[in-house]
Amino acid sequence: MNNFTFHNPTAVYFGEGTVARLGELARPYGKTALLVYGGGSIKKTGLYDQVLEQLASAGIRTVELSGIEPNPRLTTIHKGIALCRSEQVELVLAVGGGSVLDAAKAIAAGALYDGDVWDFCMQKAVIQDALPLGTILTLAATGSEMNGNAVVTNWEEKLKRAFGSKHTYPRFSILDPTLTYTVPADQTVNGVVDMMSHVFEQYFSLTPDTPLQERMCESVLQTVIENAEKALAAPDDYSARANLMWCGTMALNGGLISVGMQNDWASHGIEHEISAIYDIPHGAGLAIVFPNWMKYVCSERTDRFAQYAERVWGIERAGRTDEEMALAGIDATRAFFSRIGAPSTLADFGIGGEQLDRMAAEAVRFGPIGSFRKLEQADVKAILEMCL
Amino acid sequence: MNNFTFHNPTAVYFGEGTVARLGELARPYGKTALLVYGGGSIKKTGLYDQVLEQLASAGIRTVELSGIEPNPRLTTIHKGIALCRSEQVELVLAVGGGSVLDAAKAIAAGALYDGDVWDFCMQKAVIQDALPLGTILTLAATGSEMNGNAVVTNWEEKLKRAFGSKHTYPRFSILDPTLTYTVPADQTVNGVVDMMSHVFEQYFSLTPDTPLQERMCESVLQTVIENAEKALAAPDDYSARANLMWCGTMALNGGLISVGMQNDWASHGIEHEISAIYDIPHGAGLAIVFPNWMKYVCSERTDRFAQYAERVWGIERAGRTDEEMALAGIDATRAFFSRIGAPSTLADFGIGGEQLDRMAAEAVRFGPIGSFRKLEQADVKAILEMCL
Repeated sequence: MNNFTFHNPTAVYFGEGTVARLGELARPYGKTALLVYGGGSIKKTGLYDQVLEQLASAGIRTVELSGIEPNPRLTTIHKGIALCRSEQVELVLAVGGGSVLDAAKAIAAGALYDGDVWDFCMQKAVIQDALPLGTILTLAATGSEMNGNAVVTNWEEKLKRAFGSKHTYPRFSILDPTLTYTVPADQTVNGVVDMMSHVFEQYFSLTPDTPLQERMCESVLQTVIENAEKALAAPDDYSARANLMWCGTMALNGGLISVGMQNDWASHGIEHEISAIYDIPHGAGLAIVFPNWMKYVCSERTDRFAQYAERVWGIERAGRTDEEMALAGIDATRAFFSRIGAPSTLADFGIGGEQLDRMAAEAVRFGPIGSFRKLEQADVKAILEMCL
Repeated sequence: MNNFTFHNPTAVYFGEGTVARLGELARPYGKTALLVYGGGSIKKTGLYDQVLEQLASAGIRTVELSGIEPNPRLTTIHKGIALCRSEQVELVLAVGGGSVLDAAKAIAAGALYDGDVWDFCMQKAVIQDALPLGTILTLAATGSEMNGNAVVTNWEEKLKRAFGSKHTYPRFSILDPTLTYTVPADQTVNGVVDMMSHVFEQYFSLTPDTPLQERMCESVLQTVIENAEKALAAPDDYSARANLMWCGTMALNGGLISVGMQNDWASHGIEHEISAIYDIPHGAGLAIVFPNWMKYVCSERTDRFAQYAERVWGIERAGRTDEEMALAGIDATRAFFSRIGAPSTLADFGIGGEQLDRMAAEAVRFGPIGSFRKLEQADVKAILEMCL
């Protein structure tokens, strides 16, 4: 186990009806909130009205920024930052899924920064401060509700980049599983793939002596697998939705399940290059990439992959080598993704091989990616070819 | 899963050498620290000197309170509170195991309270504020380094009582596994039993639909079991000590592993009555009580006990009823405790049945205890009789 620092100051309010606490939670932060949301589904469900009512009851004036895109765009974030400045916003409140939350983080950090918020994504500047952020989650997926990370897309440059900071942890996050009842099946699937992928990035690690962390990772994976099909079969199954929601949070809450482990994140890097160009859903891209990444790198540590196959998928060790176990576990992953309806190839989106070189080059812009195996440009291209 | 709030603001600095960060971590809190420690073992190991040096380098004046007892006493805590007031202490720094940390929490809360700190233990008052608290942990056991709980013994009244508050979470905790190399075998064992017992109190619950939480509990238990004998065989095995230390923290860090589950805590209540009278180590008392509590209550939910036997102890289901599984799991628990050298009966401490009625009456002073099965005075007495 490596040395580590862990500090996750986000307060989580979990369960049916917890939106009713918004007023009391927001009140201490000031008089004006920027409400950040997406395409308006929160208006159909009544959540929008409830949020406005809660804020009004707390004496908070609301400024709005709607229309956050599924891969949130820098241009939209710039609008939010301008609103924060012109309206003296004191609290940013994100209501939506990971994209809305990520946009809100970029807005909160950008509002207190003199340069362009994109600098944080391009590693040209480090976040020193941010406006307080609260969130109401409507989609179980990214874990953004309990970490300081965000992903932003610069559509002009066709670049998708992440930043992370201790200043962009939400002060509070409201997680009501019933808000995910209306999430369409494909988005539920993308969320499932996303949270599983977050665990994979942490679990497949070369760091020795991390038995508790490995088991925590396996616990999240098993619970996601157990509940995904239940939620798809009955979208208003409270237990399934609640378990998925909490799994999504635990999968990436400041690294708790992998403290002291070197993480990888190469597959996320590769997927970001795909969705930066083709604007496909992040979870869908991960479903395509991850099993191929696994096949490409599993020889680095077949024992970990064999453990994965046995503990997560219940594949019997008897009569199998570690290599056979590893491949069986990877096959089980692909089979599960297909069973829940996730795509398995770029061709499923009509994407061909034209941009592979560009994507591979962009993926390693800051140097080789990953740590389980360091991937050079040629490796990334090889994995992308497996995705065709 | 029940609704829940989770908020754990403690920052953890984990790993060999992290004591060297004390100065920078303590500096923001002020000019005077109260250093709270136990019997002086920190002077033998050199930790005491390092702490003083770190505080001095940060420009912090140090006031000392040494001699905190294994079951920390109210009279000692009163001395600490008086020191905080007379010396204008701004930071309480606990260096030691759970007892030292608990005493420091009581001091930190008592220093800002006009009445007697014992009021918090007797539910006569609620903590409204506390001095900032930092900790350096030297014993893996109680989880006090990452929660707001403390246990205090009032020796005059022979009462041992707990309190918990969001104000008494440490601001920072330094966890260096090498500091536990010198922990004697019996204290290592008591720590192992204590952390396992914390998990038991959360895991044996009637709350339905908590699969991730159950697996997290099982993960901690499996990892403790796997590492306990390694640490006993080689006290300076870094990996074993590090895993035990992190398991102790995860076992009781604000309830993370059991969010949304009703907890029990009856066995802790019963043990507190034993050690309040006989001053035996808390972990030793728990080793005696817990398997007997398990036997007394397991019929409430044999499926959970059967799951425990299978997942934690690897006992095969084939050919066994849930009842047989449950009993096999309880037997495995007792066998493990005995194997690592924990006591199994009150007679091991020369304690007879003279005070059973008094202990049973005190345990239910505020009403029946526990939630897995509510225990009345007669139930507590029955369990205590099983401990003789």
